[in-house]
Amino acid sequence: MQWYFVAALLTVLTSSQGILTTLSQSNGRYLYDYATVPFLAEVFKLVVSSILLWRECRVSSSPRMTTEWKTVRLYPIPSMIYLIHNNVQFATLTYVDTSTYQIMGNLKIVTTGILFRLFLRRKLSNLQWMAIILLAVGTTTSQIKGCGEALCDSLFSAPIQGYMLGILSACLSALAGVYTEFLMKKNNDSLYWQNVQLYTFGAIFNLARLLVDDFRGGFENGPWWHRIFNGYSITTWMVVLNLGSTGLLVSWLMKYADNIVKVYSTSMAMLLTMVLSVYLFNFKPALQLFLGIIICMMSLHMYFAPPNMLLDLPSTTKAAPESLKEIYVER
Amino acid sequence: MQWYFVAALLTVLTSSQGILTTLSQSNGRYLYDYATVPFLAEVFKLVVSSILLWRECRVSSSPRMTTEWKTVRLYPIPSMIYLIHNNVQFATLTYVDTSTYQIMGNLKIVTTGILFRLFLRRKLSNLQWMAIILLAVGTTTSQIKGCGEALCDSLFSAPIQGYMLGILSACLSALAGVYTEFLMKKNNDSLYWQNVQLYTFGAIFNLARLLVDDFRGGFENGPWWHRIFNGYSITTWMVVLNLGSTGLLVSWLMKYADNIVKVYSTSMAMLLTMVLSVYLFNFKPALQLFLGIIICMMSLHMYFAPPNMLLDLPSTTKAAPESLKEIYVER
Repeated sequence: MQWYFVAALLTVLTSSQGILTTLSQSNGRYLYDYATVPFLAEVFKLVVSSILLWRECRVSSSPRMTTEWKTVRLYPIPSMIYLIHNNVQFATLTYVDTSTYQIMGNLKIVTTGILFRLFLRRKLSNLQWMAIILLAVGTTTSQIKGCGEALCDSLFSAPIQGYMLGILSACLSALAGVYTEFLMKKNNDSLYWQNVQLYTFGAIFNLARLLVDDFRGGFENGPWWHRIFNGYSITTWMVVLNLGSTGLLVSWLMKYADNIVKVYSTSMAMLLTMVLSVYLFNFKPALQLFLGIIICMMSLHMYFAPPNMLLDLPSTTKAAPESLKEIYVER
Repeated sequence: MQWYFVAALLTVLTSSQGILTTLSQSNGRYLYDYATVPFLAEVFKLVVSSILLWRECRVSSSPRMTTEWKTVRLYPIPSMIYLIHNNVQFATLTYVDTSTYQIMGNLKIVTTGILFRLFLRRKLSNLQWMAIILLAVGTTTSQIKGCGEALCDSLFSAPIQGYMLGILSACLSALAGVYTEFLMKKNNDSLYWQNVQLYTFGAIFNLARLLVDDFRGGFENGPWWHRIFNGYSITTWMVVLNLGSTGLLVSWLMKYADNIVKVYSTSMAMLLTMVLSVYLFNFKPALQLFLGIIICMMSLHMYFAPPNMLLDLPSTTKAAPESLKEIYVER
């Protein structure tokens, strides 16, 4: 399977996620406990990965599976980072409003590039750095509050702590992604075995969260296992399946592509959601959406296009030796 | 003199033009007849160019001067195009509001690129095309109406004629620039001699405009030569000198650099004006201004940086033959 096919599928599914979540609401409110959705998605991913691993075991007698504690103990770390991230996110929102938070979220694109370079030691050309910054600028542009929209004076007038926490949040989010990539590429283990470990811990952490919520709420609505499917509609189940599927695709990309591909997929998904919202929810498209789309498309092309496509080198390098062509392809 | 020095100076002067023009107003109104400013600027440019030509004649006994009618007759053409452009501009504004007009003005960047390619046969790499589109997107982004600003619902809701005229206007503006470049580079004539021809016709056309205005107004305020300096302050004179100087710099760039350099200079000037307005006129900077600046800076770097700076080629091409380096430099 080609990585760009998986990336395109991830874009479509991530985009549907936003739309399905909106459709699963009733008058702008959730009739079900939203915290149960990620838990069920983890369980779904765990079940799918287990079945695939079992099938793999039957076909090739011994898929690569490292079961040493030294390796297994690394798998809860992404879940831990996400747990810290969620709490930082919560703290950030006490200082800044949601639109500022959303805008700051684009910083994640740049922090992912930085941690990708620092931790995974992946070299990027200047043009690729520019593309990454442009991607963040493009998604931000599409989110600029148009005139007539409320709450616009509050943008970037929050206390400094809000911005510091926003930056921390972007770093943690990038760290979780980069760490997962490190984990998936660390050895030649079967992807399904790696997934089983990842999602086992993911399910445990999400379960713990449901329990903590119950304790915090003093079991007012009963324990989570009593109300887990309360208010679930077909759309809610689709939200669960969709979230699970995107998770599986992200795992695949972490092993066979990289974080930058994932970042492009999810950024494009955000723009696709906005375009689809124009038709589905009568969302009024503003100039900034068009501009954002153009910027992100340019960024995509700058990052992934081979240099000779960007700079018309072939027509002038006809006399160049064959050995040089490899250099261009490698970049 | 290096072209980037001239381009930087043009940016600063073009930027001052907007600020000086604002400063020359009194409570948002002109106390003088604004139509006299471009006429006096043409006269200023003509005088300066004549002096420089005379000096050149003294130093080198015979500067290159083509005086054939076949060549001279081409010099009124830019003025004619500008005349048509002004009328199209006027017609456009009867269909669209000024903010839409301003936004559409950025189209000029792209049309200049297209005519530059078609008429002057100058090849641009894909990356350079992308840079040109990004420059237009960047300047447009900086002009997005923020929330709370009036007249925003009217954006892009004008009749189709308005947009067609806006596109025509962008084409005419680009045509005038590209034609001037063609004229200046057509032969090895002295720049000053070319300027003298250009500005003689420029002064005549502007004079004609003053006369037409007088006739249209039924000489209500007297003929133009009675009121030419009415209400002129020191700032007004600075506006005239500034406009004249930018014109001379543009001529220089048309001969020794090109239209794309000019387009970058004036686009950067627009952003510089907005930044300076923050300090001078308590203009409230919006997120879109920062985003626009980042996009335009990226575009500038993409267009002008040598390929090996963008793609880190040198470190991997150490083994490449010397002949190839030339190709990179040439682009």
